[in-house]
This record gives sequence, C-alpha cells and structure tokens, in this order.
Amino acid sequence: MVENLMDKIVSLCKRRGFIFQSSEIYGGLGSVWDYGPFGVELKNNVKREWWRSNVQEREDMVGLDAAILMDPKVWKASGHMESFADILVDCKSCKKRFRADHIKGKCPQCGGKDFTEGRAFNLMLKTFLGPVEDVGSVTYLRPETAQGIFVNFANVVDTSRKKLPFGIAQIGKAFRNEITTGNLTFRTREFEQMEIEYFVAPSQAEDKYKEWIETRFNWYLKLGIKKENLKIRPHTKDELAHYAIACSDIEYNFPFSTGGGSLPDRQAGASGGGWSELEGIANRADFDLLQHAKFSGQKLTHPDLKENDGVPYIIEPSGGVDRATLAFMVDAYHEEKVKEETRVVLRLHKDLAPIQIAVLPLLKNRDELVALAKKISGELRPHFRVAYDDTASIGKLYRRQDEVGTLYCITVDVQSLEDNQVTVRDRDSMKQDRITIDRLKEYLSKKVSN
Amino acid sequence: MVENLMDKIVSLCKRRGFIFQSSEIYGGLGSVWDYGPFGVELKNNVKREWWRSNVQEREDMVGLDAAILMDPKVWKASGHMESFADILVDCKSCKKRFRADHIKGKCPQCGGKDFTEGRAFNLMLKTFLGPVEDVGSVTYLRPETAQGIFVNFANVVDTSRKKLPFGIAQIGKAFRNEITTGNLTFRTREFEQMEIEYFVAPSQAEDKYKEWIETRFNWYLKLGIKKENLKIRPHTKDELAHYAIACSDIEYNFPFSTGGGSLPDRQAGASGGGWSELEGIANRADFDLLQHAKFSGQKLTHPDLKENDGVPYIIEPSGGVDRATLAFMVDAYHEEKVKEETRVVLRLHKDLAPIQIAVLPLLKNRDELVALAKKISGELRPHFRVAYDDTASIGKLYRRQDEVGTLYCITVDVQSLEDNQVTVRDRDSMKQDRITIDRLKEYLSKKVSN
Repeated sequence: MVENLMDKIVSLCKRRGFIFQSSEIYGGLGSVWDYGPFGVELKNNVKREWWRSNVQEREDMVGLDAAILMDPKVWKASGHMESFADILVDCKSCKKRFRADHIKGKCPQCGGKDFTEGRAFNLMLKTFLGPVEDVGSVTYLRPETAQGIFVNFANVVDTSRKKLPFGIAQIGKAFRNEITTGNLTFRTREFEQMEIEYFVAPSQAEDKYKEWIETRFNWYLKLGIKKENLKIRPHTKDELAHYAIACSDIEYNFPFSTGGGSLPDRQAGASGGGWSELEGIANRADFDLLQHAKFSGQKLTHPDLKENDGVPYIIEPSGGVDRATLAFMVDAYHEEKVKEETRVVLRLHKDLAPIQIAVLPLLKNRDELVALAKKISGELRPHFRVAYDDTASIGKLYRRQDEVGTLYCITVDVQSLEDNQVTVRDRDSMKQDRITIDRLKEYLSKKVSN
Repeated sequence: MVENLMDKIVSLCKRRGFIFQSSEIYGGLGSVWDYGPFGVELKNNVKREWWRSNVQEREDMVGLDAAILMDPKVWKASGHMESFADILVDCKSCKKRFRADHIKGKCPQCGGKDFTEGRAFNLMLKTFLGPVEDVGSVTYLRPETAQGIFVNFANVVDTSRKKLPFGIAQIGKAFRNEITTGNLTFRTREFEQMEIEYFVAPSQAEDKYKEWIETRFNWYLKLGIKKENLKIRPHTKDELAHYAIACSDIEYNFPFSTGGGSLPDRQAGASGGGWSELEGIANRADFDLLQHAKFSGQKLTHPDLKENDGVPYIIEPSGGVDRATLAFMVDAYHEEKVKEETRVVLRLHKDLAPIQIAVLPLLKNRDELVALAKKISGELRPHFRVAYDDTASIGKLYRRQDEVGTLYCITVDVQSLEDNQVTVRDRDSMKQDRITIDRLKEYLSKKVSN
C-alpha cells in the first residue's frame, strides 16, 4: 500500500479540484463538502453507471426521485422519530455536550466527572414549513432516501404495472446530524445515497437477497475496485434491526479506521482496521410496507401476490455515492518511479474517469500548434469528455492529466503540422501511438466507448 | 391550444407515473413533489442535455456540485438574511396569517378588518447543525445554488487555471418557504436549479450577456419547444436588483397564470397571461464577488484581469429544472383524431423522451411471441432506454407508449417467428417499417443517437 495514502488523497482532492470544504472562504462548514470540477464529473459518472446497470439495463427495475422534504408522519411510521438518536450528556463543570458512549469516566474537555442524565438527541435535521414556526410546521430533512420509495410503492405499482419481483431505484441527498464525522467524505452531515428497494414474494426473498449481494459486489469489481480491497461481511444476529431477517455489508479497505464512530457504525459494527461499509444489503421482510400501511391507513399490497396477504418482502441494497466515489479514487491511486521521478496516476476505470481525452500542444508559444490543438479538442468535444491545456510544459501537462486519471493524452507537435498526425499516449502503459487526425474519433471511440 | 391543457397534464402526470405528490399516502405534503418512473427519466434527460451543452461541449465551462448546507455567513454576505422575505400580517379576529400584499382591505378567511403590523418573514428554511439547538447552530437550506459557485470561485480559478471569460455550471436542489405556491411543479418549496455563473472582464460583460440570452433561448428551441411559446422579456429598470446592470427572462407560455404570485414574481413582474419565467439571465456586475470578499476577508479576483482591480463581472443564466421539465411536457402534449378516436401523444424531443423504444408482443398469450419480444428487448436494453409491455391489447399498448412519448414501438407478431422481421412504428408519423431483427440495433441507432 502507498504510504500516507489518505493524506495524499486529501491533498490531491483539494489541489486538483475534486473536493473542497463547504463555505471554505468563511472557515468551512464542518463535515459538509463541495465537489469541484473533476469531482462532480467523477461523481456523476459513478451515478450514471449505477443507474445504467440498475435501472436502464434491467427489465425488473424502474427509477424514482422523491423529494427530500416529507410529511413528518413518515418518520413516525419508519421509527426514525423515536429511535434514530444518539444519547448525549452535558459535563456539569464545563457545560460541554458529549455522546454518552464517548465519555470514559471523565470529561474529555475539562476532566470533570459529573454529568447530566443522558438525553436522546435525534439525528434528523429539523426544519419548518409554512408561515409560522411552531410544532405544527415542523418537518425533517430525510435521513435516508428509502422512505421516499416505500411511500410511493402503491403509486408505482398502479402506474408501471410491474410484476413481482421488481425494484425501485433512487439516487438522492439525505441528511444526518452526526456528532462524530470525518475522513473526508466518508461520513458527512449531507450525503448522497443510491438505494434500491426490491419487492419480492416472501418465499423468494432469501434467493434474491443472495443474488443482490453478488450483483452489487460485482458492480464495484467491474468498475475497477481491486478484489483484495473488497469483502462481504454478514451481520451477526445481535446487530440486526428487530425486523430484519438478514443483512450484509460490502466493505472496502479504506486507508483510515472508522471503528465505532457513529450510530450506524455502532449498530452495524464494521470489521475494524480500514474495513468499512461501502454498501449494505438487507432483507427487511415486510416491516416497511406494514408500518406505512398501518400509519397511513392505505393498502400497500401487490395485486399478484398470494402469500402473506399480498404484502411483499423487501431486499434493500443501499449504497453511498460519496463513499463509492471516495473508494474509487483511493483504489485508483497509484505511484510509480519513472526516470527517477514519482509518477502519480489515478487509474480510474474508463467509464469513471472525469476526463477521457486531453489535447495538449507541445509548445504553447507556437500559434499554429495551439490553433490545431484547439481545433482537434473542439471536434472531439461533442463525443467525449475532453480537456484542453496549454498552461505548462508538456511534462507537467502529462503529470497533471495522470493524476486526475485522464485516459488518453493527445499531443500536437511541429510535425503534426506537416503530416496531420498526432501522438496518443495511454495513461496506464504510457505507450504512444501516432494517429492521423482524421482517424482520431474512430480510434478513440473504440478505446473508450462501452 | 388543447382545451383544459393543464388539467390534462396534471392527470397524465399522476396516471402514468411522471409526478406524484410527496407523501401522498399521508395526505400529501404541500407544494412538494416526487418524480415517478417516467418523470425521473425525463428530468434526468433534461439535466443531461443541459450539462452536455453547457459543460461538456464548451471549453470555457467547468462543473461544480456544492452542498445544500452552507455557512450562515454566506447568507449575510448575499443579502438573503436581511431582505429575502415576505411581509406577513395576522388577522386579529381569526388569528390567521396572510401575506400583506394579499389583503384587500379585509381578511380573506373571516372578513375581519383589523390586522397586526406587517412582519418580515424570511423565506429561507432554517435548520440546526450540531448537538444543541440554539442560535449558534442555526443554518439554512440554500434558497439558490448560485452562492455555492461564488464562494468556490477562488478554489476553481486556482485548480482549473481557466482564463477569462469562463463559467461554472451547477445543477442542484434549493428550498424556499413560499407562502403562495402552485401549478404543479411550477412553484414549489423544494426545487432544482441549473445555474451558470459566467465570469467576464467588465468591458466584455454586455456582449456576453447578449450571447447567453441567445444561447439559452436556442437551447429550448433545439430541444423542441415551439418558437411561438417562447419569448425574451427584458426587465425594466425598476424591476432590477440595485446591483444588477440588466436582466432578461426567457418566458414560456404556460397554460396557467402565475401573475404576482410570489416574491420573485413580484420582483420580476412576469408578462402576464400564461407567460411566466422559465429562466433568467442577469448581468450581476461585480456585486457577488465584492460582497463575499468583504464578508470573508478573502481576495476574490482573477489573476489575468487588469480592469476593475481584477474583479470580474458575472453573467448568470439561471433556469429551473422542474419548470423546464414541465414546459417540455406541456409543449409536447398533442391530441389528434385517429379513426374517430382521440390519440394523445407526447411529442418529446428524441433526447428527452423517457423511453426510446418499446417492445410489444402482438399477442400476450402466445409464449413464443412473448419470448421473442423479451429477447429483443434484452438485446436492445444496453444501448437504448427500453420498455417491454405485454399487459394489454396492442391498441392499448400503443396508446400507452404514445402518451409517454416513446419514440419507436417494435411489434413482434406471428410472422416474426417465420421471417425474423418486426414492425417498427414511428411515434409521430405512425408510419410502420418492417425490419429484420438483426438489423434493429443499427436501424434504431441511426434514428435516436445524437
């Protein structure tokens, strides 16, 4: 493993514009992050590939995009109002507030030993809708996207006519007032989920649960995560929510430890070391639909289902967009010695790389070279994710493109003006091909298209 | 124009799964909407096309994805804390609260004539971050995405090395505690923006302002909006914010009136009738960067700029994803008489249609037809947005696909089993071609690809 890998990732993210701290010019808002120009492209690629493989390419799946704001009754039904909480205590000497399970006998701030009684602190972010700030106008930012799917189950069944088994997929923001956060975008207060709720006959649930674990595990492999950095960890019985029949985490071996940091960690108990949850796949049985049927008074059944009074079971593969994006970056980070120098290269999968093709003039002060390079980048731009750069020497331009994971660098040199050919350099092998400009589009299409 | 067009759109959205009310099984959360299976695909297509034409295809643009939660100091600098407010009054008889400018002498609820003094009510949604709900932990859900771009200006300049003029594009959610909402997704409390902040030398600002108005106007035309339903309305001097040099709205002729409904409407004063704002393009001068420089103490200049102490001007084309999506649907809605029956067809542009290709077996009870149709849809699915449906007669299946805007319907009939050919029906002309199954992918690629 690369030494100080996480420090290098954090530095790369900031230096090259993948991730910035929110409101940084004002000192930064804690545990909230903005994605810069390369970061947003990488994250969008992760989301697009997830949508493609889980919605577009599957006949048994449809998409949904539910709002972040929901009726507060949703959170009563889901149990979040009552039990989605940390226990907090106040130190009676210094008045600071801590998570009860973080106090080891004395106050981490002042050493005091006298604390208030523990008080449940709900992790949902509260807000107010309407013209009056009172109890009746309180609502919450969703702490998970899943409930937006459950409450739309009947609408989707009615309008899509999907037969069982079928699933609803959604990508969207969620919010948690985490007290302990950290490790860049691994645990944040504002984050993005990519969740599937897959509805099955109870008798099929176990098979589909296993199938989804495999499907989701293979998705990360297919997009380039090294197998040795990925593992499946089935939850023990005492980790499971009372209603859940089974749950497994897909863990990634991150270059930091997250042990016991937060409510979901403590509930789930990650493997330790760097192994931390990337995605969870749960067999939630009929809990969610029964709860919402009970609280809403609506019938939440599937017309074709004979078993279990028509109430399907739910398999839930629930992943984090930010975590997946971070894992793809960490896993792709690679250092190698090239002619006494360290080459940093982000070996991102071709479908994830923010930039597919960079067009670089060999000499920035030769107008004809700049003009030809701009012409080529303009022609390729409608078909690929293209960058143009002429703000440094060619060696430096290559290094810049390598460390953001650009697949191919096209160099326009003096000879290009004569022979209409350019050099195409492969990111990973650094092998160079000389290609006629007219054939570039075709050559590159074969290399980068799906 | 189609009679009762808006009622028909609302009904279609609900019936076919484009748009559902948020938390509908609980009675519905006011002015918040969820996008169903067809809705999310349509909306994603709108966003993808916007990103493609404004980021991917332009050398002078980069993307960004800033968080919804920001440091509250941002809203002091932007002026939202002080002046992003409605004036509300309470009726002293019935205690109901109203917007002061909606009271015409007497209470709309009880007829009372005695009101409290007007009080400014900020439209930002408040929330609390951290373990204590107090003044120090208050923050706000952003009421616009623009500020996320302004505060990242220096970070983007430093990491991307973009020369002037260049722009930063962003798509993301924003929230406003609107008192008066309505017209489906036209004005909602949770909505999605697609915004560009384009940084230019002050001496170039007027030219670029005009260029962006044209560019954005043409984008809607290119994606199929009829020219007669689109117009540019320059703001009058007294509508402009004090710092703005100029602003123009791109208005769409919606089948409803929005006159004077909300704060932005009143500030902007739409043309009236159905003409309402789809997008605004403003020349904001140097107001935003100067404000944030002043409040943060940071230097927000561009190293290449000699004029104006290095502070660029900003041209801001700011559109609504939900409004654009609604306008595309409304504009595409078409009714025609076909053999005594009314055919409803959503003539969405090919890049926007949620489904490109539907595969339909002519007879749903013939196993070989169903098997062949499923085989064909499976083969096309990796390359196109495909639907398969066998839950009704072919006439009904066509009608279903027409009203969601599916470009081509492929029908598998008994003869297909013999001659390996299928019928491909064009949505708009209803013309049918008989195509060999092996050639389908190539035939359809030519029709639907960019």
